[in-house]
Amino acid sequence: MVAVLKHGTTKEQTELLINWLKNQNVDVNVSEGHEYTVLGLVGNTRNIDVDLLASLDMVESVKVVSEPFKKCNRKFHPDDTVVTLANGTQIGGGSFCMIAGPCSVETHDQIILVAERVKAAGANVLRGGAFKPRTSPYDFQGLKAEGLELLMEAKKVTGLPLISEIMNINHLDMFEDVDIIQVGARNMQNFELLKELGRTHHPILLKRGLANTMKELLMSAEYIMSGGNENVILCERGIRTFETYTRNTLDISAVPMLHDLSHLPVIVDPSHASGIAKLVRPCALAAAACGADGLMIEVHNDPIHALCDGAQSLTPDQYDEVAATVRKVLAAVAQ
Amino acid sequence: MVAVLKHGTTKEQTELLINWLKNQNVDVNVSEGHEYTVLGLVGNTRNIDVDLLASLDMVESVKVVSEPFKKCNRKFHPDDTVVTLANGTQIGGGSFCMIAGPCSVETHDQIILVAERVKAAGANVLRGGAFKPRTSPYDFQGLKAEGLELLMEAKKVTGLPLISEIMNINHLDMFEDVDIIQVGARNMQNFELLKELGRTHHPILLKRGLANTMKELLMSAEYIMSGGNENVILCERGIRTFETYTRNTLDISAVPMLHDLSHLPVIVDPSHASGIAKLVRPCALAAAACGADGLMIEVHNDPIHALCDGAQSLTPDQYDEVAATVRKVLAAVAQ
Amino acid sequence: MVAVLKHGTTKEQTELLINWLKNQNVDVNVSEGHEYTVLGLVGNTRNIDVDLLASLDMVESVKVVSEPFKKCNRKFHPDDTVVTLANGTQIGGGSFCMIAGPCSVETHDQIILVAERVKAAGANVLRGGAFKPRTSPYDFQGLKAEGLELLMEAKKVTGLPLISEIMNINHLDMFEDVDIIQVGARNMQNFELLKELGRTHHPILLKRGLANTMKELLMSAEYIMSGGNENVILCERGIRTFETYTRNTLDISAVPMLHDLSHLPVIVDPSHASGIAKLVRPCALAAAACGADGLMIEVHNDPIHALCDGAQSLTPDQYDEVAATVRKVLAAVAQ
Amino acid sequence: MVAVLKHGTTKEQTELLINWLKNQNVDVNVSEGHEYTVLGLVGNTRNIDVDLLASLDMVESVKVVSEPFKKCNRKFHPDDTVVTLANGTQIGGGSFCMIAGPCSVETHDQIILVAERVKAAGANVLRGGAFKPRTSPYDFQGLKAEGLELLMEAKKVTGLPLISEIMNINHLDMFEDVDIIQVGARNMQNFELLKELGRTHHPILLKRGLANTMKELLMSAEYIMSGGNENVILCERGIRTFETYTRNTLDISAVPMLHDLSHLPVIVDPSHASGIAKLVRPCALAAAACGADGLMIEVHNDPIHALCDGAQSLTPDQYDEVAATVRKVLAAVAQ
Repeated sequence: MVAVLKHGTTKEQTELLINWLKNQNVDVNVSEGHEYTVLGLVGNTRNIDVDLLASLDMVESVKVVSEPFKKCNRKFHPDDTVVTLANGTQIGGGSFCMIAGPCSVETHDQIILVAERVKAAGANVLRGGAFKPRTSPYDFQGLKAEGLELLMEAKKVTGLPLISEIMNINHLDMFEDVDIIQVGARNMQNFELLKELGRTHHPILLKRGLANTMKELLMSAEYIMSGGNENVILCERGIRTFETYTRNTLDISAVPMLHDLSHLPVIVDPSHASGIAKLVRPCALAAAACGADGLMIEVHNDPIHALCDGAQSLTPDQYDEVAATVRKVLAAVAQ
Repeated sequence: MVAVLKHGTTKEQTELLINWLKNQNVDVNVSEGHEYTVLGLVGNTRNIDVDLLASLDMVESVKVVSEPFKKCNRKFHPDDTVVTLANGTQIGGGSFCMIAGPCSVETHDQIILVAERVKAAGANVLRGGAFKPRTSPYDFQGLKAEGLELLMEAKKVTGLPLISEIMNINHLDMFEDVDIIQVGARNMQNFELLKELGRTHHPILLKRGLANTMKELLMSAEYIMSGGNENVILCERGIRTFETYTRNTLDISAVPMLHDLSHLPVIVDPSHASGIAKLVRPCALAAAACGADGLMIEVHNDPIHALCDGAQSLTPDQYDEVAATVRKVLAAVAQ
Repeated sequence: MVAVLKHGTTKEQTELLINWLKNQNVDVNVSEGHEYTVLGLVGNTRNIDVDLLASLDMVESVKVVSEPFKKCNRKFHPDDTVVTLANGTQIGGGSFCMIAGPCSVETHDQIILVAERVKAAGANVLRGGAFKPRTSPYDFQGLKAEGLELLMEAKKVTGLPLISEIMNINHLDMFEDVDIIQVGARNMQNFELLKELGRTHHPILLKRGLANTMKELLMSAEYIMSGGNENVILCERGIRTFETYTRNTLDISAVPMLHDLSHLPVIVDPSHASGIAKLVRPCALAAAACGADGLMIEVHNDPIHALCDGAQSLTPDQYDEVAATVRKVLAAVAQ
Repeated sequence: MVAVLKHGTTKEQTELLINWLKNQNVDVNVSEGHEYTVLGLVGNTRNIDVDLLASLDMVESVKVVSEPFKKCNRKFHPDDTVVTLANGTQIGGGSFCMIAGPCSVETHDQIILVAERVKAAGANVLRGGAFKPRTSPYDFQGLKAEGLELLMEAKKVTGLPLISEIMNINHLDMFEDVDIIQVGARNMQNFELLKELGRTHHPILLKRGLANTMKELLMSAEYIMSGGNENVILCERGIRTFETYTRNTLDISAVPMLHDLSHLPVIVDPSHASGIAKLVRPCALAAAACGADGLMIEVHNDPIHALCDGAQSLTPDQYDEVAATVRKVLAAVAQ
């Protein structure tokens, strides 16, 4: 930690501060400049209240040198984390994970049909929303428990492991057979939910919040990991920007940057990132090219709504093509 | 609702779409232009799936005319909502509410001392954090149940009604004697929490999320109100922008704009909005000048940490002066 | 300047770097910690290329301690700058400046009529756009030279000093009798224009860019001042955020923060900040309450377009009331 | 254009408005709903002042149906624009353009050496900054005219066409032999500069502003094209977001989205987008995978500053590898 003292701070004030810091078991090195004095704090700086220190009249600014995340920090764990699902499917460490399925589970036939199609195209995890976070209380909130039942049936039929979103701590029991529990963007800083998930050993896919930084995403991963659950998968799903032609903006550079900062796997969700079906393919290829550990893509088969090509969902046929081209890109960038 | 059809849409496609809409009990008026055809949809448009409609190949764009919030919409409830606390204190409708107290409840002596000082300065609600949402799992998380106990004692001594933040649905029982339950910025879209609070009759202060729009804030209020609880107070507490000199950016125009859109009271929190003690006074005066229904200000008395002037807290003496000047501004703008 | 060296940097590398720094006349103090080594650089650090230093493999991060703005920095010039116009009108240092007038100059009668009305209401500077920056090349671009002529006539009739926006260095001659030259938000980082204006002694009103930080605003002021022109007035006119109900978001806390950082006067433009006439009054009162040095407000009188109340313009009657209430607020907050 | 009238608007008011619209040669279709009346305006709507219409008391909102950009709109020009340089090099329409070179031109030897290396790696345009837009007036502003001279020498030696940034209309003469004139992000809305460039036939590379939308980028392209110069290349170079680990956020979905909206070529600049050398490779591969028409990459060879790996520049060796892998990705995604 580095503290910069304002010009005009007296010797006495400086010594008072240094003593206060030393009493907290911190060593202090002083660099005196013309305009500022810089204190280099080393040792047990974790006990220092940064906000308190920064708010002192004599202090110009404080710089925290150590990153606040520890358990997910690659510095302390250089090797990639590999999350292994119950059926042996691996996520991270070189495997490329293909998650696909409908936004919402709707009917038995729908989920079975989509599951079989995406499996045939190479997907190895089935996604499906049972509990849906909706901005409006008047919008469809998902089939809930019934939706989870339908997912289990699709798992039984196809053998695909499942991922589905949790919104309420009290629903945890219902997710016992869901292979990966998803924490949605709006709950990324629902710390009580994160803490509870940290007490399980369930694989967790943690989505980045709409306006959250990578550091905040990693701190939320840290909440889960500090509880003892190290099976965390990060997910970049687009952030809010001023752009209106796309729903969100896929932060593609987050993939290599998160890999640099952390040993956790990083999955990209191009469907939510763009919100537009025709952008899913190029964004998926970009994610594969820049080193993502997998893709989560919405696929929907809807013969009843023939008019509809799906706001952000691919048809199974489109998914076939995207999955095949993704594999070609992965081969091209493999070193 | 208005749907714009792309240039080149055939008569047959247009009629297919119009029939599909009419089957859903919607009337359709057609305006044919050179470049586009515009369909004006009237009647029972709530059943129309906007995303589905917008995703049709033939549809250029869809505009939803009605606002999605109903219960908090001033159009349907022209009169200001007045939230009345158990001791008769009124919020909204012309009363100006002064909420003050420490960020975190720390000790018995601290909370009693601060409560007495802010009451003497004119505050009529005491704030104090017991459960604290912290970005890092390694930071102080609040005194929790013990903090609520200390707040109750301060209420007994001073008679001030209480406000404190809830983070977990399962803690609701503990908040029975807390007069206003606060939903923090990070939980603004924790819809499960909002729904549960909608089943109570507790006054709720709902803080705007760091990167949320006013419409999203009102939709979250709608979650609470659609459950039956109309005692909702909105709180502007600063939004995230690119600015780094201040922690957040107080959106002062949200006060008159929210008053225009909704009948709910609007409180401003200048302490969290700026994150810097010296900005609290000017921001508080600005809020009073532009029609806010009250102010929530952090006040802290800390003789032990004499070095510290508090990152964003005022001293009781500073609060005295701010409260007095706020009253002068209120008098100046009263018509 | 502070440089943090990565864990694992060898003694030899560290000494190589220290020698390189010392060769550039910088003194280096070393603080060795468990995880990091911190170098405190003092002396002639201005010659150090920060980006170069930060990009070294061994360097974790660099923190620049000194602010990059010098001439507009309050640290080196504690007293408020007062900009004095040709007719003696003062801006800054306790005077409150009321700038008002139409967005665009349209006709002789319009500008004379508005000028007389705003003067009667207490305005002491007349605004009027002659050259208009429009997002679309197909939109009205202003009356240009003819608009400036009409402004001169209004100045002759009313005696009000003028402010108008420049968009092109080559137009400078035309602005000789314009008392304050405005640099618009889109040109805040048109450095060539700023440099040219720095060679004049004209008072310059510099608007903050739509997505620029206060530091960037001050660096742009520095461009003008480093050329020798210290007559710079800062203008907060709303920043871009995710909010859509208002055109921009007025950053009210920028007023006290800029006053803290700089000695330059700070004017608020509530008309462009909100983009909605009914929000101009509350935002103007807020600006007056929080210490702004003046207000720039759009006023328009349009008997021809009787249907129109002006997207963001006040009528002269509305301006009368706002100006009177602003004076009451100023009296209330005067200490 | 669609105008929504507020609930409670009288028949008389509605007719008054309809007549006013018809007098401007616009046809009006009326859709009456329970809560709103919707007017569909067709015909010559370009003359309607949208802001004026939207500001009417009776008008709830206005929706502009047509896109405001015409000349760059793919709807009216379905085929890709191909920009052809003096030496025959093509940009757009299936060619992949590799622009590379140093951020700033420094010396004769530097620019020749880098030019020869990037040419050998497959680059077909040489970049080099002569006039540098710097946030601080105290930072290096480029070699200016001398820098352009050095670029010409490199062109003579290698045969590579040149791209360099213009900052001032009055410098246009100096750019006669620069094959592509770059308009930087900070000048994207310097409309006077754009208009002047529209009067030439020079190929223009227009960079997206830091906080500008795609629509604003296209409107700025429209400024150039409406002057008669259709040789415009769009450049995505990262936008400002809340993320701090990267300098900017590369908006990768802008590539397919801009291709959908416009027929102009789209180049990606991964160097400025991320600001970090190690992110350039993954971002470049992502851009190639998602359909960009080319890449502009900073390459620097600096034997003197051996300590430095360049904040965002690749070494010639690194560029060799990136260029080769980009070609593999292009082959993988070719259909």
